[in-house]
Formats: sequence, structure tokens, C-alpha cells
Amino acid sequence: MSDQPRAVVLLSGGLDSSTALAIARRQGFDCHCLTVRYGQLHECEIEASRRVAEALGAAEHRVFALDLAPLARSALTSPDLAVPKDRPLDQIGAEGDVPVTYVPARNTVLLALALAWAETLGARDLFVGVNVLDASGYPDCRPAFVEAFEDLANVATRAGVEGARIRVHAPLIEWSKAEIIRHGSALGVDYGLTHSCYDPGPDGGACGRCDACRLRRKGFDEAGVPDPTRYSARP
Amino acid sequence: MSDQPRAVVLLSGGLDSSTALAIARRQGFDCHCLTVRYGQLHECEIEASRRVAEALGAAEHRVFALDLAPLARSALTSPDLAVPKDRPLDQIGAEGDVPVTYVPARNTVLLALALAWAETLGARDLFVGVNVLDASGYPDCRPAFVEAFEDLANVATRAGVEGARIRVHAPLIEWSKAEIIRHGSALGVDYGLTHSCYDPGPDGGACGRCDACRLRRKGFDEAGVPDPTRYSARP
Repeated sequence: MSDQPRAVVLLSGGLDSSTALAIARRQGFDCHCLTVRYGQLHECEIEASRRVAEALGAAEHRVFALDLAPLARSALTSPDLAVPKDRPLDQIGAEGDVPVTYVPARNTVLLALALAWAETLGARDLFVGVNVLDASGYPDCRPAFVEAFEDLANVATRAGVEGARIRVHAPLIEWSKAEIIRHGSALGVDYGLTHSCYDPGPDGGACGRCDACRLRRKGFDEAGVPDPTRYSARP
Repeated sequence: MSDQPRAVVLLSGGLDSSTALAIARRQGFDCHCLTVRYGQLHECEIEASRRVAEALGAAEHRVFALDLAPLARSALTSPDLAVPKDRPLDQIGAEGDVPVTYVPARNTVLLALALAWAETLGARDLFVGVNVLDASGYPDCRPAFVEAFEDLANVATRAGVEGARIRVHAPLIEWSKAEIIRHGSALGVDYGLTHSCYDPGPDGGACGRCDACRLRRKGFDEAGVPDPTRYSARP
């Protein structure tokens, strides 16, 4: 067994969480990665998370199934809601604009599961790749959310009762997509392994038109890093 | 559709959550009950929750499945950990004593799911039957936990962004078991429908010896209300 401290890392297989994992590894944590199959329609994320966890030397990777679709209506979980396409970049992530791809309370549920596992593992550190700048206006990607969850974690658990301190790390929270890509590239993240698209084609390629694709492409452009994304052949 | 405001009520089928449901109904809420099959070994709770939701006039009752056992080790989810029996009453719930029946971060996960459903339903009120006095020392049954979750809910969600106020009601939090039973009896709760035991017999009857059974029996004794619990014929 490693003598490094353990951390639980929420890993979606996207660009942000893969970078968060690389940062946690660099900080010397033994990383236990948790990917949640929460009913998202874009399941290629799950395969991407497996590739990334292996490439970045995770100590362990678990895929946990929980179908949020019956409780949490969103374009990411409900086939009858369309994923918005071709939105102007200055409209994505505008203050107060919560898009239809927001999954109600999703990050609260994901962090709660990570917290449960952390307690069982004896880990005191959670890592999450949320990011406020290019975050499409999601309420649960803001610094206030991360702080509130950390406060909660410290009263909700045995560690809290025993006076230990649980930390929720969101290292990317104030970075632009370009900054994330530059940091991750310096840490050796292979972004060709990651998947960000909300509406991939039948061939698993990215659509290039949803908010996630547009923010991602802009990030590579601004970072001056070649975009390794495989786009769908679908017209 | 009812014009009463909607609430999401976490309903385990036990004595406390059934009383919380009766209180929410009395306060005029249209109650959407959520029972989570989280991997607990005592599944008779699920059946009890169905009976209670119907008897108390829930608008809707959903049973949501999510197997916490692989992430959260506890005597309630792991067959190799024994449920403690015959503990002295003054030892149950002692400050700083978190027992083996504590399920890591369970109430955080349950409230997160309730929050997701509340957002989807447009409900602003959550009810949970947690209770600190006779709560076996669980960290996530304390007032500080409920307050921290309410704070989180108000930054984690669309409602929070839009300036609405989500409330987490824990009406029993400072009551003794006897007070809970007296309040619930006055509201017409039939405690014969509820199930509290952590380790029921093969016949579904209560063991009479786990912390939950002991606190429950003491509550009926102190309340001066006949105990309708069906105890197991198992020796």
C-alpha cells in the first residue's frame, strides 16, 4: 500500500476533471477516482474516464451507477430535451443564465458520493474539476458552492465529529479553459483521451457545436495547443 | 393538480420520517415522498415506507435505487459487520460515539437526491426526520448538519441563483423519541405501519435488541403509548 495520502477524485473523463486528477497526482496524492454513470446520454464519457485514470496513474478507478434521470430533468438526461447548439460564445456562461444542460443538484450528488467513499477510505481530500469562468452558468460550479460543500462535509461526517478537516479542492475553479489546458499540458495530460461533448455522434466523435465543444475548442485556440479532439463524421 | 405548495419528504418507513411526513401534511404541503433503497440490509423499511406514504396521503411516492454498499462501509450495508445488540441506553447516542451502524455520508447523499427532485418538481421545501437526541451519535443527524445542508442547497441550485429560498425542515431534530411519538400520535400516525429495526428476523419482525429497537421501545414507554411493534419470533 502506498504511504501517500489518499484523495478521492471525481472524474468525468472530460478535460476539466482529467486536469484536476493530474494536479492531485502532482500534489502527491494516491488518487481514488470515482466516475458516476448518472444517466447522462453521452456515455462515451465513461470510456474516456477509464483511459484517463489509467494514463494518469490512478490508484483505483470505480464507476458507480445511479440513474438520476427520474429525479433530475435535464438535456443531459432526458432525450426529449435538445442540447443547445451553436450558441454565441459570449452567451455561454452568462451570469444568471442556467442552461437546459444543467442537471439539478448533480454536483451535490456527485460530491456526496465522493464524500461517502472518502470516509470509507480514510481520505480527507476530495478533488473536483468544476470551473466557474467557462462553466455555462451552472450554479454548482461556483466557488460559493465548493465552500458550502466543504463546510457541510466537515459537519456531516465522522471526521467532522473527531475534529479532522476535510478539504474540497477545486484547483481549476478560477481558470479559463485555455489556462486549464496549459496547466494540464505541462503536467502531461493527453487531452486526446478525454471527452467533453454533450451530444456525440454515433461514432463517438464530438459534435463541435454544443456549449461544451465550443468552450473546449476556444480553449485550445487560446492556449495555442493543437486540438486533439476527434470530431464526429456526422454532418 | 393540487394548489398546495410541494415538498419533498425523505421517507425511510421508520418512526421518525413517518412523523416528519405527518407534520409536512399538517403544514399543508403536497408531499412527494422519496425512499432510497441504498443497499440497507433491512429492506422491510421499503415496504413500510409504501404503507406509510399511502396512509398519510402522500401525493406521490418514489423508491429510488442506489447501492451505497460499495462506497460506504457500515453495519447497515455490509453483512460482515455485526449490528450491535443490547447496548445500555445511556451509551446509545453518547457524544462522540459514532457507531458501526453509521453509513458514511448517507444523509448527505439522501438530501442531495431529494434536492435534485425538488428542483425538478419546483419544490422549495425538503423534510427530513433526523433527530439529534436519540440519534445514536450520527454526525449527520445534528442541527449543524441540517443548517449546513440548507446553506449548500441555496448556492447549489437554480433556485439559489434566482434568489429563491430553499428550506430544509427537520421538525423532530430536538425532540426525544417520546415527544416524537406523542406528536405523531396526535397527528394520526399509525406506528404499527412503520419499521425501525436494523436487524429484523426472517419473518420481518423487529429484533428488539439493536439501538433502533431499544430507542423505539423506550420512546413508547416514556410516551405512555402502547407499542404496536411486531417483534420477531426468532429467539
